Amino acid sequence: MKRVALGLVVLLLGVLPTARAEDEAPRAVPRPPGYSGRDWSVQRDWERKLLECADDPAYLRAVHDAVCERPHPAGTAQDAWMIERLAALFHDIGIEPERHEIWPYLPRFVSASLTLVDGEERVALPVRELPEGESEADFDAYYKEVLPGWNAYSGSGDVTAEVVYANYGTREDFAKLAELGVSCDGKIVVARYGKNYRGYKAKFAEAAGAAGLIMYTDPADSGWGRGLSWPEGGYAAPSSIQRGSIKTLPYAGDPLTPGRPATKDAARVDPATLALPKIPVQCVGWIAAQPILERMRGQDVPAGWQGGLPFRYRVTQGDAPFRVRLQVEQERRIAKTANVLGVVKGSRYPEQLVIVGCHFDAWTFGAGDPHAGTIVLYALAKALAQEARRGNAPGRTIVFANWGAEEMGIIGSTEWCEANAERLDEHGVMYLNLDMAAMGTTFRCSADPMLYDVVVQATKSVAQDPAAPAQSVFDAWTADTDGKPRFGVLGGGSDHVGLYLHAGVPSVSLGAGGSKGVSYHSAHDNLRWYRQVVGDDYAGARMLTRVAAVLLARMAGYGVLPYSPDNVLREGADRLEALAARAPSTSTRLGLLATVEKMKAARLRLGAVDALRAGVPVHGLDVATGTEAARLLIRAARAWLSPAGLPERPWYRNVYAGTDPFSGYASWSWPAVRLGIELGDAAMVDAADDVIREALDDFTRPLIQMQALVDARK
Amino acid sequence: MKRVALGLVVLLLGVLPTARAEDEAPRAVPRPPGYSGRDWSVQRDWERKLLECADDPAYLRAVHDAVCERPHPAGTAQDAWMIERLAALFHDIGIEPERHEIWPYLPRFVSASLTLVDGEERVALPVRELPEGESEADFDAYYKEVLPGWNAYSGSGDVTAEVVYANYGTREDFAKLAELGVSCDGKIVVARYGKNYRGYKAKFAEAAGAAGLIMYTDPADSGWGRGLSWPEGGYAAPSSIQRGSIKTLPYAGDPLTPGRPATKDAARVDPATLALPKIPVQCVGWIAAQPILERMRGQDVPAGWQGGLPFRYRVTQGDAPFRVRLQVEQERRIAKTANVLGVVKGSRYPEQLVIVGCHFDAWTFGAGDPHAGTIVLYALAKALAQEARRGNAPGRTIVFANWGAEEMGIIGSTEWCEANAERLDEHGVMYLNLDMAAMGTTFRCSADPMLYDVVVQATKSVAQDPAAPAQSVFDAWTADTDGKPRFGVLGGGSDHVGLYLHAGVPSVSLGAGGSKGVSYHSAHDNLRWYRQVVGDDYAGARMLTRVAAVLLARMAGYGVLPYSPDNVLREGADRLEALAARAPSTSTRLGLLATVEKMKAARLRLGAVDALRAGVPVHGLDVATGTEAARLLIRAARAWLSPAGLPERPWYRNVYAGTDPFSGYASWSWPAVRLGIELGDAAMVDAADDVIREALDDFTRPLIQMQALVDARK
Repeated sequence: MKRVALGLVVLLLGVLPTARAEDEAPRAVPRPPGYSGRDWSVQRDWERKLLECADDPAYLRAVHDAVCERPHPAGTAQDAWMIERLAALFHDIGIEPERHEIWPYLPRFVSASLTLVDGEERVALPVRELPEGESEADFDAYYKEVLPGWNAYSGSGDVTAEVVYANYGTREDFAKLAELGVSCDGKIVVARYGKNYRGYKAKFAEAAGAAGLIMYTDPADSGWGRGLSWPEGGYAAPSSIQRGSIKTLPYAGDPLTPGRPATKDAARVDPATLALPKIPVQCVGWIAAQPILERMRGQDVPAGWQGGLPFRYRVTQGDAPFRVRLQVEQERRIAKTANVLGVVKGSRYPEQLVIVGCHFDAWTFGAGDPHAGTIVLYALAKALAQEARRGNAPGRTIVFANWGAEEMGIIGSTEWCEANAERLDEHGVMYLNLDMAAMGTTFRCSADPMLYDVVVQATKSVAQDPAAPAQSVFDAWTADTDGKPRFGVLGGGSDHVGLYLHAGVPSVSLGAGGSKGVSYHSAHDNLRWYRQVVGDDYAGARMLTRVAAVLLARMAGYGVLPYSPDNVLREGADRLEALAARAPSTSTRLGLLATVEKMKAARLRLGAVDALRAGVPVHGLDVATGTEAARLLIRAARAWLSPAGLPERPWYRNVYAGTDPFSGYASWSWPAVRLGIELGDAAMVDAADDVIREALDDFTRPLIQMQALVDARK
Repeated sequence: MKRVALGLVVLLLGVLPTARAEDEAPRAVPRPPGYSGRDWSVQRDWERKLLECADDPAYLRAVHDAVCERPHPAGTAQDAWMIERLAALFHDIGIEPERHEIWPYLPRFVSASLTLVDGEERVALPVRELPEGESEADFDAYYKEVLPGWNAYSGSGDVTAEVVYANYGTREDFAKLAELGVSCDGKIVVARYGKNYRGYKAKFAEAAGAAGLIMYTDPADSGWGRGLSWPEGGYAAPSSIQRGSIKTLPYAGDPLTPGRPATKDAARVDPATLALPKIPVQCVGWIAAQPILERMRGQDVPAGWQGGLPFRYRVTQGDAPFRVRLQVEQERRIAKTANVLGVVKGSRYPEQLVIVGCHFDAWTFGAGDPHAGTIVLYALAKALAQEARRGNAPGRTIVFANWGAEEMGIIGSTEWCEANAERLDEHGVMYLNLDMAAMGTTFRCSADPMLYDVVVQATKSVAQDPAAPAQSVFDAWTADTDGKPRFGVLGGGSDHVGLYLHAGVPSVSLGAGGSKGVSYHSAHDNLRWYRQVVGDDYAGARMLTRVAAVLLARMAGYGVLPYSPDNVLREGADRLEALAARAPSTSTRLGLLATVEKMKAARLRLGAVDALRAGVPVHGLDVATGTEAARLLIRAARAWLSPAGLPERPWYRNVYAGTDPFSGYASWSWPAVRLGIELGDAAMVDAADDVIREALDDFTRPLIQMQALVDARK
């Protein structure tokens, strides 16, 4: 899964060094800060070779063919098959694969059915995506191995009840139902997909006393309301089903081993003590929701609740006498799966880790989710491995990670973080997430501000379209924003959650969108859909591969880590100031504003750090000094990790960024402050403010030390 | 018809006199400016008696029964029947009716049909509102006298062609079609109702080369997208049809006698020279549009074009081989109709005219449009006539006008203006429009700023709900706007067009909305719909009657006209300043801003006019002085009339306000300036600016003279 929030940030760039085209340098590649002419020549040659090898549409296509052959949800036989296939792909490019085996608590689909009970009539409503009733052209995309619609971690049960329509099932929607005097007690709630993480729909429905929950895709949200349906166009067809997990625990990863690795013999939590869903929850297409919704005769819907089906929606059944029977059976058990990793060892700072990841488990074929990222990952690995064999190894170690069981609740990557906690804390310099990356050709990026500058540099170094090399990815990205790059904020919904929000490694998610379609978690997330809707030329995947290749070459190069701490303080101050305006009390507001001032003062002070501003020359540092510089920069990056974690969810340790705990996908800046504001809890805000002030010192101190280090070397 | 634009204005009230409750005065009635204690006592007693007589739900209901018995479009036999019924109603309340006969050029429905031609198949699509296929409960609302759907002034013709979907058929929509490379040439355009006046859809379609036009009500706009359908709820049913005129000449009224009265033997323009529609145009419900739209297989629609029917809309047919046959026949001829007037003569200033009007012609039964206003008009007339008989005649003459043929193009009221041009110019003090007024209980008002204060005073004087007298209409009106009244700007679409935009009489439209339904121009605009959807208790009509009774009593009372010229300058300056920001050149902008400054200076100067600020004592003036004061105030009100009229439409003489010439319903402030801006024509703006500066002098001068008049009397 990947639903990264688009709380976009327009970066007002400081003065970035302009491209100084050297004689032999390609005109479009600006020299990044910190490289002398000679250093740059070496770096650029390496990058050029990497690009030559990585930007390979035939290979992208071949990997795509290999990984999309069968549906492969985590914990199934096909999952095990997939692990071997991924290992083989590493082997083929000369990387010895590592299987990091884990034993998480996973659900298994057993059965599901939905029945409309109307008087004597019993109408079976489809819980499978059926080509019948849709275009026959879709038939070849339908494989018998695709499971029916199911929501991982649903409760098991068989209930027959009246229904209540709850719009998107957000916190606000359930509050509205309460305001309207509509009880969900003992009812089956029907909610449409969208607006929040589906796990919250289930959580709120259960909290409201519902006996069951049906989630469906409304045609207003991904059908005729958006565009042409599959197979003519790319949007949902009437029977298309969005599968997905509904786990909402206060930590990512295996439910039974929070904070520690899910090894075979790990100490485990008793599942009975966990807040996993108890009621049956079922996802369907609108073909199954329509016969229910159109029979409702009760209360008219409030503003914003009408969907796209051709009748007025109702909140309640009114005098319509029908019932709905919902039957779901799932088994939960400890099952083996694995992450599949390929490592290209660094030659200068081998202990330092750049991690590039994409999950591999998929609800169906995964052509879009996740393998629109997997193909980029392998293209990068192929190039880095080839150059390493030719004697051009990266300065730092690069780990290429295929994460398992992400769809179940970001399990594989989290378990790897927990299994490598110390090493990651000391040496993790960047996590690049590629989940579902190449879904179009419009570049998008969400990132920790520490990585803004290096991303900008990378996008300026490669062409958006090799056939028109004058326009860089940066030019295309910022064409509508007056040359100002827009970064999203990393929220929930993919593998950066463990690496960034728990382990504190500066993270970035690269993507490309703009295609006219959504195949998300449905049976048509297959190669035919991808090649028809996203494109058969892999232009988006190639573009991202180019950007990512340069990004890796810079982050895993020989020089000082190209972090941009100034962005961290600038954005942090701006976002905290915005929150201060909503503070629950004047004294709390004044406290926050004082922290904002402190952040601005620290920014001014760091602005004087030449090493960060102008770049530290790459080859000018001996290994010991370079190692110490990296240690200090990594310490600064970890400053935002709070040992106590966030209020009510201590596993989330990043105080700079977090997920919206009321919706799941959206991101929050300064999440502990934000939670206190949302709850109107001044004491919580004050406590969070104290944590930020201390963290700010932890952020500034090592950076000052680094300056001293560089000064001493002069 | 009545579709007044809601370019709302929040009035930041100056210091209005606070209620000074006298012993015997009802607590809720604030004394208006200019009344001494004794004057106020007399005025208040009169108002109280008027309210007692007017606020009469049984009478409102009886009038409603009388005027909604049969459908009665202008120029039909039922129209003649209706004229007699209206005369009888006047007679019943002791007013001798006057029939002002006119002979306009009116269309007559002859026949219409719509056929889907798909291979060998011929499917007749309904152009009538048919209870079949809808709820049987609707059957009794369907009378054989209701005509099928028709658009008055459509061309006659019989065409068979491919279709193009044009969204709302606005100027922007047709520009988008051109941008997409879609030709309308020889095609039948299908457009949904909404966003602009339907006449412009026809005009743009014809200009684009279309062979015909089908307009339909989309369920997104008045069906399940808005609420429950008739007869369960109040919104459009699948076969509901919005009828309506499509005339778009650059003047209102009879097409053949622009600027002069349509008497029997008037000199007439040759119809062949007029830009009346040439192509056949037909309105239908979505039940008829759906079979066409769902067969289209061509180009996907752009953003914002998707309607509420359950499939993806297309702009073109693509390879779908069907055709549509559209056949319309209408006859155009000179036909007799009339305005029906009732006059209550003023006792002090009988030559001065307060006009209260509502049209009477209706596409079907007219329960909402127009007779939700007719009932208020008669309730007011009954009260004023009764009190006059008892010796409490108004100070000024009140004309109660039932206008004919408004739906065809604002014909009756315009012809009356043209027949009474001189008298109206000299003595018209206010026009109150009541078209379709009582459609709910939420008070709404659009007005010339000259009338803001008196409207505010009136709404403060009566209760929103007599059962809870503590809350005035003003309180309810401004509950969500912090006590600041919001006034709409009078645009096109009803009888104020002639009186305000041509004759320059300060006008006001009172209304009440908030009901959950739309019956606009459809067969269910009948009493059963009104009483089920708007209400059976006539609460909204009673509320408006109360406000209007006080408004009339103040405007037609004994004192100096309670105009508020300060509002005219304040709003005028604000709106001109907003336009200046969009001026096509710097020098033009500077010119406009200089005019704004001049307006502000004039405002300061008039602010010193005590007579206007504090009110001129009512009984302190002898008749001659009062007459002269009124003359000066009326001269000021007419200052905005330009003899040359607006660019390209000289019949529209008001330079302060006008209709949007690209959409018809929306209103423009300073319309000549605005047109120049929209066209990027600096010379046009400069010329309009000159006209405004001169008008500003004409506005200020008589007001200064009035001050001198009042000073001399001291």
